[in-house]
Amino acid sequence: MNDSPFIPAPDTACAERVGRHLATLTKPPGSLGRLEALAVSLAGLTGEDFPRVTPPGVVVFAADHGVAEEGVSAFPQAVTAQMVANFVAGGAAINVFARRIGARLEVVDVGVAGDLPAQGIVHDKVRPGTANLARQDAMSRDEARTALAVGRRAAGRAAEAGCRCLIVGEMGIANTTASSAMLAAFTGASVAELVGPGTGVVGEALAHKRTVIEAALAERAPDPAEPLDVLARLGGLEIAAMAGAYLEAAARRMPILVDGFIATVAALTACRLDPALRPYLIFGHRSHEPGHGRALAVLDAEPLLDLDLRLGEGTGAALAFPLLEAATAMLAEMATFAEAGIDDRPEG
Amino acid sequence: MNDSPFIPAPDTACAERVGRHLATLTKPPGSLGRLEALAVSLAGLTGEDFPRVTPPGVVVFAADHGVAEEGVSAFPQAVTAQMVANFVAGGAAINVFARRIGARLEVVDVGVAGDLPAQGIVHDKVRPGTANLARQDAMSRDEARTALAVGRRAAGRAAEAGCRCLIVGEMGIANTTASSAMLAAFTGASVAELVGPGTGVVGEALAHKRTVIEAALAERAPDPAEPLDVLARLGGLEIAAMAGAYLEAAARRMPILVDGFIATVAALTACRLDPALRPYLIFGHRSHEPGHGRALAVLDAEPLLDLDLRLGEGTGAALAFPLLEAATAMLAEMATFAEAGIDDRPEG
Repeated sequence: MNDSPFIPAPDTACAERVGRHLATLTKPPGSLGRLEALAVSLAGLTGEDFPRVTPPGVVVFAADHGVAEEGVSAFPQAVTAQMVANFVAGGAAINVFARRIGARLEVVDVGVAGDLPAQGIVHDKVRPGTANLARQDAMSRDEARTALAVGRRAAGRAAEAGCRCLIVGEMGIANTTASSAMLAAFTGASVAELVGPGTGVVGEALAHKRTVIEAALAERAPDPAEPLDVLARLGGLEIAAMAGAYLEAAARRMPILVDGFIATVAALTACRLDPALRPYLIFGHRSHEPGHGRALAVLDAEPLLDLDLRLGEGTGAALAFPLLEAATAMLAEMATFAEAGIDDRPEG
Repeated sequence: MNDSPFIPAPDTACAERVGRHLATLTKPPGSLGRLEALAVSLAGLTGEDFPRVTPPGVVVFAADHGVAEEGVSAFPQAVTAQMVANFVAGGAAINVFARRIGARLEVVDVGVAGDLPAQGIVHDKVRPGTANLARQDAMSRDEARTALAVGRRAAGRAAEAGCRCLIVGEMGIANTTASSAMLAAFTGASVAELVGPGTGVVGEALAHKRTVIEAALAERAPDPAEPLDVLARLGGLEIAAMAGAYLEAAARRMPILVDGFIATVAALTACRLDPALRPYLIFGHRSHEPGHGRALAVLDAEPLLDLDLRLGEGTGAALAFPLLEAATAMLAEMATFAEAGIDDRPEG
């Protein structure tokens, strides 16, 4: 049980039934390891003895960050809009991986500063990029709430389109800076521990990025007990939207497959807003970005994959998705010992 | 280059071309981590700039082990034949996962002791189970060679049926005992370090299993420098067939996705027979079985997944297969920076 007014607790009776069914399938008990735990978890989340996760919905939220003007990214801000055009044209990594898993892919502009294609995007811009968090709050609390609602609407569209599992990705030049600042604010961890090369910042540029974040933390000084305050002062519009999408998906009992560093900071933010979210989060992969390990530890999360990815867009979660499908197929399709006429009693 | 008369060295020029192509795709360089290394490796193995791995072939070799009469397994020997019938009926875990990846699945009887269905199996039995390696050599060298040839034929059939990647699985009650004995013989590692609960042997039964293996190692005393001697004295018919299948697949330039502990001991055996095999081996997962870590270390192998699996049948490799598909799709389908009109020059 939990005290969330919106997010239901997992169905433990269903999870227990599925655990008992697993023990009757033609394999040594427990021999499919984490796949068995996944199946039990998916049953509890959905309340279905034979849960389905197909088709998945992938939503990519794009937004710009004023702090990009501090030179914290290896790429110029214009790349956010250019990559959104690439998503629309189908040429980015998330397009390729979303196609492989048969996903419904939606790209949402929640705050891109540049010009975007008119078609193929959900236009739900809160403002054209955040303010530079090194100099002022990234956004107001009202804007953060509005961006959360953008995310909630997107998850609602995915659910209404029939998606059975949600993957949320992001595009936003400089968003590792915002995410690292938020994570430092939430956890009190040192910036040096959390902040790595992101998309390719090394040497002096990396030292500069750390200095910018440390100064921003000191000047913005958000209240770590107030997730909306951290989000507004240090966050990003796409990070807020991701958090909102998670919360809405959980309210609708959709399992969520979480991507990398930025997605996990958004998940942490959303869990601070409503702790009942946590059971719905399945973590796709452990990113190469150093802060990700800390964010995962705070959430007591053990990701499915560990492949040195650091791209974002939802790619790592999309790559992990076939494991969820396999877990549900195991439950639905394997024969029991009795059906197969196999001796299931250990000898001796 | 290598000095194998059968297995070609990877095409390094092709691998280098693919590495350069990867650097032009719309993502930060290297940000897809091990997926990029996989793509380069698959290009080198196949000699194709856009390698394909679909459809994969799954071959499950089944055989019995005389040492089962020593009470080293939690299941009776009859389960080998019963599980083969389950494979034929489509109800086992490997059936479910093979269907998910669109694999051609073939079940080969290389040495089952019990009665088997007439249809749906390739009947290529060398002998009805090995001898009890606790009391005599498991098989003769001639029988080991014959079982290797069974595996080579099976890989040949998969290649001729159009399969572009090979997964090899096994079923054989007591085959963790044979594999552990072989690994101890090859590496000199202590049996206590290598031998864990297998399909569910714990407590006194586990101590007994270790004692049986230690005694067998002392009495069979194979020459660790002679892989065929180790295979014949301590091995299994399905383990020999797996080794043969790997060697034939590599001779045909098919990438191989290796399953868990028994599959890795078979891979080590095959590499001792022809070291030119090694580049063709991609390791699917790290098994829960303690000896697997040692076998992987000897082969300098870093598996793709780590999900506490310990089932065998080829299941862990089948679960990893979508990552190979994703790596090839990334190469073939992602847009380049130039095509997408994106600024690929880092700032500053």
